[in-house]
Amino acid sequence: MTLESQMILIFGGTGDLTRRKLIPSLYHLLKKKQLTMCTPIVCIGRQKITREAFLNQLSPEKYIEDPDEVILKDLLGRIEYLRFDLLTGKPAEFGAKVKTLRQKYSCAANRLIYLALPTTVFQKTAEIIAALHDETGWQRVVFEKPFGEDVHSANQLNESIMSVLQEEQIYRVDHYLGKELVQNILTLRFANEIFASTWNAQTIDHVQITVSETLGVEKRAGYYDRSGAVRDMVQNHLLQLLSFVAMEPPGAAIADALRDEAAAVIGNLRRVRREDVVLGQYGAGDIGGEQMVGYTDEDGVADDSITETYVALRAYVDTPRWQGVPFYLRTGKRLNHRYADIKMVFKQKALEVDTMPGEPNLITIRIQPDEGIALAFNVRKPGGNGTTESVLMDFCHHCHFGPNTPEAYDSILRNVMQGDHSIFPRWDWLSASWHYIDGLRHNAGPPILYQAGSHGPVAADTLLAHDGRKWLSDEAAGQRILPLFSP
Amino acid sequence: MTLESQMILIFGGTGDLTRRKLIPSLYHLLKKKQLTMCTPIVCIGRQKITREAFLNQLSPEKYIEDPDEVILKDLLGRIEYLRFDLLTGKPAEFGAKVKTLRQKYSCAANRLIYLALPTTVFQKTAEIIAALHDETGWQRVVFEKPFGEDVHSANQLNESIMSVLQEEQIYRVDHYLGKELVQNILTLRFANEIFASTWNAQTIDHVQITVSETLGVEKRAGYYDRSGAVRDMVQNHLLQLLSFVAMEPPGAAIADALRDEAAAVIGNLRRVRREDVVLGQYGAGDIGGEQMVGYTDEDGVADDSITETYVALRAYVDTPRWQGVPFYLRTGKRLNHRYADIKMVFKQKALEVDTMPGEPNLITIRIQPDEGIALAFNVRKPGGNGTTESVLMDFCHHCHFGPNTPEAYDSILRNVMQGDHSIFPRWDWLSASWHYIDGLRHNAGPPILYQAGSHGPVAADTLLAHDGRKWLSDEAAGQRILPLFSP
Repeated sequence: MTLESQMILIFGGTGDLTRRKLIPSLYHLLKKKQLTMCTPIVCIGRQKITREAFLNQLSPEKYIEDPDEVILKDLLGRIEYLRFDLLTGKPAEFGAKVKTLRQKYSCAANRLIYLALPTTVFQKTAEIIAALHDETGWQRVVFEKPFGEDVHSANQLNESIMSVLQEEQIYRVDHYLGKELVQNILTLRFANEIFASTWNAQTIDHVQITVSETLGVEKRAGYYDRSGAVRDMVQNHLLQLLSFVAMEPPGAAIADALRDEAAAVIGNLRRVRREDVVLGQYGAGDIGGEQMVGYTDEDGVADDSITETYVALRAYVDTPRWQGVPFYLRTGKRLNHRYADIKMVFKQKALEVDTMPGEPNLITIRIQPDEGIALAFNVRKPGGNGTTESVLMDFCHHCHFGPNTPEAYDSILRNVMQGDHSIFPRWDWLSASWHYIDGLRHNAGPPILYQAGSHGPVAADTLLAHDGRKWLSDEAAGQRILPLFSP
Repeated sequence: MTLESQMILIFGGTGDLTRRKLIPSLYHLLKKKQLTMCTPIVCIGRQKITREAFLNQLSPEKYIEDPDEVILKDLLGRIEYLRFDLLTGKPAEFGAKVKTLRQKYSCAANRLIYLALPTTVFQKTAEIIAALHDETGWQRVVFEKPFGEDVHSANQLNESIMSVLQEEQIYRVDHYLGKELVQNILTLRFANEIFASTWNAQTIDHVQITVSETLGVEKRAGYYDRSGAVRDMVQNHLLQLLSFVAMEPPGAAIADALRDEAAAVIGNLRRVRREDVVLGQYGAGDIGGEQMVGYTDEDGVADDSITETYVALRAYVDTPRWQGVPFYLRTGKRLNHRYADIKMVFKQKALEVDTMPGEPNLITIRIQPDEGIALAFNVRKPGGNGTTESVLMDFCHHCHFGPNTPEAYDSILRNVMQGDHSIFPRWDWLSASWHYIDGLRHNAGPPILYQAGSHGPVAADTLLAHDGRKWLSDEAAGQRILPLFSP
């Protein structure tokens, strides 16, 4: 890994993402000596406060587990506060302020610009950033999701950004791709002969991808009620997981080869029919003894909202590798358990020396919370009446690597700093995903009510039952069950 | 499972095998209600002792872990002592004694006859058994190994037995096939799509089968010095493991279909060349701090003995499935660890999205002492400089099924009682294995000295190094290392 000096500029410097994720991740990178001596961190905000007041408000020690005093002091010493109002400020004014900083940190000509901002001000920010075109060194700009809300708006947003930036300067964040076990999907598939040679329609019966949340809409009702689960979760996280699971081996060890294959998966998705999708909306219910209100009774949600908080989906990737293999995707809020995993369900294999078919083999990639990889397989029941039992071989990630699995944002920041686009969706992927999602939304029926604390609407079970299959529980995959309601 | 009443007749009733293995296994079967009310156990010996003296000498409670009083009493109540001298006794005399017993136990017309005897008296015993031809019910006769010492003697032995018995009445014991994890090989291979579809030359680079002992020749010098490791271990145990690992799926769920395929493996073994085999003999050395004498200094071994106590072997199964895949077999006495396992070493797979090839995948079937199945596979090293690390997914048999894995002899007795030949080598298998072993012994060089407590002669490492490979340690396979010297 080559370390380059660079100035990190964070728009939205006083916001939650900066405080909770970016600064702690920069601390982790500093601790691992992955920031050069000359890597100032400039937090941009419109609040009229001093650097000291800002640092006090930031309080990184609150968001870092077991902080090391020396490293914390080093981190704080790097942080600048730059006051600038995106809505009223002039690009020239911003340019001048950065120039001043550049004189102070002449060693850091490169710029990593992080937009920890709502999508609505992306365009405005892009114009501001354009003011830096005279600066030397490279410039990389990081955009948080959501990137648009349909093909049309995503297109518009992309055009406005592309008018001031090149594709290779753009990093669109899907923090799911920063998760260690998500990044492990490709290693698992392509660095292991046993998985590489069985990851196809000849041996796999179907795939299940689940992102199950116990949280409700929380304080995001304003955004969420306009977005819904399909756009908030499926368009980005679930389709990205699907891309990694289903892609062909990239032809070269470069990010664009990988992104070619990821985009090809979405491009090959079969159009969703009405019978392929079930939407749901949570009603009142009980989670871990706590009474929860229904979605329409949440603050900021209209009483007659028909926004979906749950999606279950049957998808097909029409490539030779996956001919006839359904990918079942589901995600929802206020469900009974909080976990995310990918289950590769193998074809059932009858024991030739016996008459009893065993349970199908099952590879589970546990993304969270209990990170790991498990293989369910059949062994002989001791005592020998010839029956088999499905048991688990398990790899527990933190048991092996220790509890400090890098946070998703550690990976994201490190990859941007290294100029590695592997885990950032390219525009063609995004465009294809919005195209798919628009089709899905167009064909989906209205959401069906499900009880908070349940596993979702019954219609989602029927979706699989229709194919002679069923959703597999998290327990079946070695996921340790955590308290029902986790914050 | 259908339980049938039967009389169990054990020749060698006063011997070690009866006391240490057969009676405890009959206790286990009784405990699991796998013996009918009418299953008398008749121990045959030439000692002039009463039943009470015999039972006292048998003392089953000493060889059973945590015996249940009620079941023990039931067991003892079933045991008869029948005095008969094989060498001087007449068949008619034996026939009369069994007839008397039959009158007492009229419910047990079927006969399970167990020859817990040295191979030298097999023929004599067969003549005695012939006296029972007038008896009703079925008759099954169990022979302990060794079954001959080369093609010629095995042939002779078989002919003499076949003159009084049919093949379906004959059960030739290889107690290795009674081991739970050996019986699991077929389940693993044929009841699991992930293994079934990768168990071939397309994905497997090579196979390693190891039976490593810390014991020396002990009190068996008389037999062992004439036999050696090739005949004592390879001809039966190792070739049986190889048969299970390499066989084609049996066409039907019957024992003979399985035995057809097992015999086909041995029939397809390529003839051993001199460069395929390394013999060794242990010299003095240190195991776990204890000084061990060399083989030729053991009691009962000639000073100039050139009997091998170690074999390493490169074998090829010339079937389409295993084209070009070497099977490396090794076994030896006085080695550094005591364990037996089978390692399926996969081809190395380079990660397309990276430049670094991972370690090859490795499936280990741990036969003893730490029974289980493990898969070594590559994951991403957290922190992301793109390197991979080989980690283990493990299935620990006793952790899952509890510590009471059935003993090998439980399976052996149960299978005979059920008339299931699956785990008993058929004559064609035996004949082919002796043919192979005779060729091996003919072409092998003299044994090379190795130090007691080492992992065997260096030439065995060279054997694999010549192919660009190396023996994998037991640790690599999740085998927990037990005290170096275990009894």
